[in-house]
Amino acid sequence: MVQAKTWVLVKHFDGFPKKSDFELRVEELPEPKDGEVLLEALFLSVDPYMRPFSAFRMKEGDVMIGAQVAKVIQSKNSAFPVGSHVVSRDGWRTHSLNNGKELVPVMPDWPQDVSMSLALGAIGMPGLTAVYGIEEVLDLKQGETLLVNAAAGAVGTVVGQIAKIKGCKVVGSAGTDAKVAFLKELGFDEAFNYKTVGSLEEVLRKASPEGYDCFFENVGGPSSSVALQQMKDFGRIAVCGAISTYNDTTPQTGPYQHLTMIIKQLKMEGFMQSRWQHKHPETLKRLMGWYKEGKLKCREHVTKGFENMPAAFMGMLQGENIGKAIIMV
Amino acid sequence: MVQAKTWVLVKHFDGFPKKSDFELRVEELPEPKDGEVLLEALFLSVDPYMRPFSAFRMKEGDVMIGAQVAKVIQSKNSAFPVGSHVVSRDGWRTHSLNNGKELVPVMPDWPQDVSMSLALGAIGMPGLTAVYGIEEVLDLKQGETLLVNAAAGAVGTVVGQIAKIKGCKVVGSAGTDAKVAFLKELGFDEAFNYKTVGSLEEVLRKASPEGYDCFFENVGGPSSSVALQQMKDFGRIAVCGAISTYNDTTPQTGPYQHLTMIIKQLKMEGFMQSRWQHKHPETLKRLMGWYKEGKLKCREHVTKGFENMPAAFMGMLQGENIGKAIIMV
Repeated sequence: MVQAKTWVLVKHFDGFPKKSDFELRVEELPEPKDGEVLLEALFLSVDPYMRPFSAFRMKEGDVMIGAQVAKVIQSKNSAFPVGSHVVSRDGWRTHSLNNGKELVPVMPDWPQDVSMSLALGAIGMPGLTAVYGIEEVLDLKQGETLLVNAAAGAVGTVVGQIAKIKGCKVVGSAGTDAKVAFLKELGFDEAFNYKTVGSLEEVLRKASPEGYDCFFENVGGPSSSVALQQMKDFGRIAVCGAISTYNDTTPQTGPYQHLTMIIKQLKMEGFMQSRWQHKHPETLKRLMGWYKEGKLKCREHVTKGFENMPAAFMGMLQGENIGKAIIMV
Repeated sequence: MVQAKTWVLVKHFDGFPKKSDFELRVEELPEPKDGEVLLEALFLSVDPYMRPFSAFRMKEGDVMIGAQVAKVIQSKNSAFPVGSHVVSRDGWRTHSLNNGKELVPVMPDWPQDVSMSLALGAIGMPGLTAVYGIEEVLDLKQGETLLVNAAAGAVGTVVGQIAKIKGCKVVGSAGTDAKVAFLKELGFDEAFNYKTVGSLEEVLRKASPEGYDCFFENVGGPSSSVALQQMKDFGRIAVCGAISTYNDTTPQTGPYQHLTMIIKQLKMEGFMQSRWQHKHPETLKRLMGWYKEGKLKCREHVTKGFENMPAAFMGMLQGENIGKAIIMV
């Protein structure tokens, strides 16, 4: 018998999440049945998508959704022997019983000197999101100019570095000077703090006077309308996130962009990485390769203690993290 | 010496165009020089794009932009003999001197029993727009469901009929009951008057409970946000026009649609037919073929008299026309 701590959504978020929307509960887990494994979480992930998806995919009383890297501590499933590591989508739980059906082993040959927490970041879902956004949605070409916002986040940092690997010019926007300094370290050609620049329009124009071929959109809201005006003709926009709107109680509004889309003949596409699931193993290998070559630097913002998950989640939504926000149990 | 009547934009439109924004002027045209032809307009076109493009492509004092079908009445250019017919972009003029460089002969073998005014409509720019929107932007497939708004207009009528030729279900929105009746005649599966339906959301859901694969957008504004919610996952949106916003003095605003685009993984693309100019001859042949087979019905809203062009233009912007708005000199 194992005691599992869980974080339960006891009240649907109304505006910015509050401590009281979450409740820490303890469950007794029975022994695994045939086919099942018992998992112990090592690292857990907090990601922006959890905020909007909580409304669609959860009801009050559910354990918060999310991914974790876990160790198999009991197994009645030969595919997942005791001691092996997996990425599971069991949510915010220290221990889980899992039937193995949707369980993914951590990449085979994961190097011993690389923290497995990266399987939740640059060599996991956010990294996959960056690759597919760039390759499948934007079809970014060598020599093109890319704009990415929330650029110091889990996805944005990978986006910018891959674009540099592909020989592109990269302009990144972030919300603190420390983040901007980090983007410069990562090799971004231009980076700015959107909170302190006077005019977003001006800074975008100055960073790339000839405009932008591609825009990797993580933020949404008013800044998106400004960015659209700076696109080149036939510009492409990958809509990955809209973090600036996730906590709205009444939706923010902005000018309709149809005419801009027509005159510039822009293409805009929303996407989720799961669409290219069949490519995940090959893509993760490439990400690990770039990491081992030093071309993909990974920074994490680590919160210690499972009990601090809601705080880590809320901090991430407020932009406290540089790089991937991770919880170490 | 020929006298040319012209309509000049004397004041940039501010909100809905006013009679006083236009001025009828008369010019004396000299004899054509070597390489030039003298054209006499037979039919002129008024189209929605003229409203927004007047701001980008014209200055006060310019002759209004636009296409016409004209007859060559004097020629010093062997490519365009006297008596031949052309589509010219000389704007709102009864007579023009043209150097032939951007002049397009009316489709070769234009049947004698087909009005050449169609070269400004279904077998011209609006028809080309419909084809490229459907084939190049939406890549509409047999069996899919298409939504088109401003469906009784020059582009919308062709869009709906081509979608039917391709074996699709077509839902059309228009602004009068007479237009709706016409759409039914054209074979639209569902058509409704957006001005009298209670809830757009409800009527869209009822017309296609399973949602829409494709949306041919001619209108923009608030209705676009409602339509987006009714798209199927991986839905495609061709942004062709935004007539509901063209006369705004302050831009209309609406809720940002990023989250909808992400969750449904929608693709949205703005376009203009000129992108596929290299395909025009082949496409016009197909349009004429469909017309001759009776699969593409063409209705025109004809205004007689060059002096009535501003009124015809303003009437078209208000939705007075069913089918293509044409001016017969």
